[in-house]
Amino acid sequence: MKRKLETCFSPALFEKNNHLNSIVIIIDVLRASSAICSAFSNGVKTIIPVAEVEEAKKFKSMGYLVAAERDGYVLDFADFGNSPFNFNEERVSGKTIVYSTTNGTSIINMSASSNMVLIGTFNNIGAITKFLIEKENDVLLFCAGWKNRFNLEDSVCAGAMAEKLLNSDKYYTICDSTLASLDLWHLAKADLIGYIEKAAQRSRLRDKKLDDCIEFCLTSDTTDRIPVMKNGVLVDILL
Amino acid sequence: MKRKLETCFSPALFEKNNHLNSIVIIIDVLRASSAICSAFSNGVKTIIPVAEVEEAKKFKSMGYLVAAERDGYVLDFADFGNSPFNFNEERVSGKTIVYSTTNGTSIINMSASSNMVLIGTFNNIGAITKFLIEKENDVLLFCAGWKNRFNLEDSVCAGAMAEKLLNSDKYYTICDSTLASLDLWHLAKADLIGYIEKAAQRSRLRDKKLDDCIEFCLTSDTTDRIPVMKNGVLVDILL
Repeated sequence: MKRKLETCFSPALFEKNNHLNSIVIIIDVLRASSAICSAFSNGVKTIIPVAEVEEAKKFKSMGYLVAAERDGYVLDFADFGNSPFNFNEERVSGKTIVYSTTNGTSIINMSASSNMVLIGTFNNIGAITKFLIEKENDVLLFCAGWKNRFNLEDSVCAGAMAEKLLNSDKYYTICDSTLASLDLWHLAKADLIGYIEKAAQRSRLRDKKLDDCIEFCLTSDTTDRIPVMKNGVLVDILL
Repeated sequence: MKRKLETCFSPALFEKNNHLNSIVIIIDVLRASSAICSAFSNGVKTIIPVAEVEEAKKFKSMGYLVAAERDGYVLDFADFGNSPFNFNEERVSGKTIVYSTTNGTSIINMSASSNMVLIGTFNNIGAITKFLIEKENDVLLFCAGWKNRFNLEDSVCAGAMAEKLLNSDKYYTICDSTLASLDLWHLAKADLIGYIEKAAQRSRLRDKKLDDCIEFCLTSDTTDRIPVMKNGVLVDILL
């Protein structure tokens, strides 16, 4: 039997009880999902996602390495922010990191009641869609958005994933958000970096001179790591 | 100075306090906005939008003509449902009608604190965008969606309105939802009826044999009437 594929454009639209048996893919392309995938690609052992700044601060005082930002800026008590380039091998290999961002980490926690929660983005799109095609669950592509708003980069990434899942013939969709994402992806894919130029988050990162990672974040298949939530923390799915 | 154009895809995403000075356009293409525009085109005097079924029932007992549906079905106590074809001249001319639908009427009431609330759809797109171009306010295109979910037909209609407003050079947008709507409209416009075939609401209306009005609802400029909220009720903007 084919599995159902749905897309959610914002945490404010998440219908928790409709996804208890689904695998949820958290998509926060610019930049949390990309940073988390980079961390696992570079050998991080565990990431503890925390939604609140105060919680992150508490972990810092307990001696943890803390990555924390709000609106793109590194918080003063944190060791670093959420550029994927921060999570290099030297810094993260074998370590446990506490991580808090504007949009990404709170929706990871929101999805905790689902069957499985994975972190996905362009960087691991091949690995994550291959994994999903081999499973038997319905899938929700959960876009982090920006402060509860729809955003282009996450929905286009959802469309790219939806294309691969639907092409496998293992999934079907009757979800307008998925259909819109597919259409946006089809428009964007010939020149993804050019397409995302108009996105609000693209401008925000440019204004803050945090846009050195855009090209990297929009590149497919830089890693085959799939971060998964287990007992409240993110680990590599192969462990 | 150019006015800001934004789009909201769902009542669950509405940021009331950001739109106190905006003109809000309520877009519920299938079918509340189309029905309301038809009613004014056919000479209705006033429409009283009510969100709750119980409230509609109370008005019925007071002798009002009541149009009320949930999930497309006419409620048993109501005089008729929300096909635009119900609101013909014979039935509505010179009358006051109480109207309650699944998605449309509750968001009319949600927007009450904005500068002005208009009902818009393809049927009055030329008139409503001409009106907006002559005003000096920011504009929010507020898609009714379906039970808080994003839907294709309302967002494509928002894109069609956005195209006209942005082409006038009186508006700018930095809103990803507006940009996505524009892209979807550009994909859809060569064959709008064909494009909307895949929409979830299209299938719902087909399954319930309520789809005789699809072509009508997707037709531009069948009327120049603009319904506006005044003192809690909808009237023709020229009155």
